Amino acid sequence: MIRAPMNDDGYGASDLLDPRDRGLQYGDGLFETMAVRDGRIPWLTYHLRRLRAGCGRLRITPPRTVELRREIAKLSAGQARAIIKLIVTRGIGGRGYRPDPTAPGRHIIMRHPWPAHAYAREHEGIRLRICRTRLAVNPALAGIKHLNRLEQVLARMEWRDDSRFQEGLMLDWQDRVIEGTMTNLFIVRAGRLWTADLTQSGVAGVMREIILEVASQQTIPLRVTALALQDVAQADEVFVCNSVIGIWPVVALNRQRYPLGLLTRQLADAVEARAKY
Amino acid sequence: MIRAPMNDDGYGASDLLDPRDRGLQYGDGLFETMAVRDGRIPWLTYHLRRLRAGCGRLRITPPRTVELRREIAKLSAGQARAIIKLIVTRGIGGRGYRPDPTAPGRHIIMRHPWPAHAYAREHEGIRLRICRTRLAVNPALAGIKHLNRLEQVLARMEWRDDSRFQEGLMLDWQDRVIEGTMTNLFIVRAGRLWTADLTQSGVAGVMREIILEVASQQTIPLRVTALALQDVAQADEVFVCNSVIGIWPVVALNRQRYPLGLLTRQLADAVEARAKY
Repeated sequence: MIRAPMNDDGYGASDLLDPRDRGLQYGDGLFETMAVRDGRIPWLTYHLRRLRAGCGRLRITPPRTVELRREIAKLSAGQARAIIKLIVTRGIGGRGYRPDPTAPGRHIIMRHPWPAHAYAREHEGIRLRICRTRLAVNPALAGIKHLNRLEQVLARMEWRDDSRFQEGLMLDWQDRVIEGTMTNLFIVRAGRLWTADLTQSGVAGVMREIILEVASQQTIPLRVTALALQDVAQADEVFVCNSVIGIWPVVALNRQRYPLGLLTRQLADAVEARAKY
Repeated sequence: MIRAPMNDDGYGASDLLDPRDRGLQYGDGLFETMAVRDGRIPWLTYHLRRLRAGCGRLRITPPRTVELRREIAKLSAGQARAIIKLIVTRGIGGRGYRPDPTAPGRHIIMRHPWPAHAYAREHEGIRLRICRTRLAVNPALAGIKHLNRLEQVLARMEWRDDSRFQEGLMLDWQDRVIEGTMTNLFIVRAGRLWTADLTQSGVAGVMREIILEVASQQTIPLRVTALALQDVAQADEVFVCNSVIGIWPVVALNRQRYPLGLLTRQLADAVEARAKY
């Protein structure tokens, strides 16, 4: 394991990264960003499962789950609220873009402070803007939480005033609504829950998966499909989610207004009831 | 400057990378891979210009050119043949995807040994295969030599036997031929030189730029346009290029055969005559 240098911001331990690591050279790796609450990660099993699936798709040798669990537990212990970020890379080796298939993957675990803004956004909702930066279409990489994140960086650079907009909505090049810069998107129309299909682009978030499970258990009608901006504009309720923030109701998309919706509240409560911590 | 650990393979000096660096976290940076010949980099001015342009597009604070030149000269000195890789990242800082606009960029310089295979391929030509992995369409990132290179990694993982195929051809999702996994592609048809337009995807290589300049000076008719696989199949000559290998004639694309062409030879000689070392 490599840990980032610990400092007053709450970062990890001592080891540094070899610049030859393919994670830096090519973004050849994956990551998980996980919420710690009362010393535990409520959705750890989901994160580790997604990480293994991503490693499988990129053919990266995953770290042993038992080892990851031990290291993560150590860094989470005693933390009331914190963020743990786990990066897995293909490590060092190969010639140029071609990896050495026998080289072991590497992982890095870092701890960050809990974001201060989360509480108000969860209860009062957020305002969304529409990003000019588009998501590329690439089924080979779609859904994976990989380290090639320049599109999200460019999208997040489009606005600075966090008091005006708290998240940006990203479309792909076919004008399909895919997700937020750091969240997945759901809409409610006539009692039915919709979210974007992520087989062409986007990141399949852990909280999105949990919400799909909850919806299925509660027999809420569900559509995973191509979403147009028009669908979002005509929605009764809109929310964004990720495993750190949970569910943030959306109260505005540019000038369009939405209520703090009932189904959004119901899902947030159901998700909270399932959290293991 | 950060230098990679020096070892018997010919790597750089001592410093390691902070894992919080956005180059690792998001692939938030750029790189240049440069050939050293007799202690000098023949195309250094082109590389540094492209790097600055890329930094401008991603709004990364570039390192000072005079400083880069000094560090690169130090690492090149006394090297008959070597590769220098320069990585520039956005450094550390910001909250999540959003960068800290005041944070300084960072750079890393590494030295690698010269690839042994280059001579034969230059003179005998290479065989191309067509990659299943497609390049995403994204004008915001097209042309830039950024650190988000998972598509190239996946493409290069498609074949292992270097004696059978020496490079892979990549198409985008609209079936346009864009480039090789690590090279740009040119074709010759009826005395005219064609290469792919790179405003939607691909990397605008330094050697591609030099060849475009040479063609212009020699008044060779030139088309920079969308290329179809059919155009490549019907070409009289085909070659790939990058600033390290120069020009490699293509003698086969799957079962299609091409001669070692005259215009390819003429361009290779003209490029060689312009190299400053």
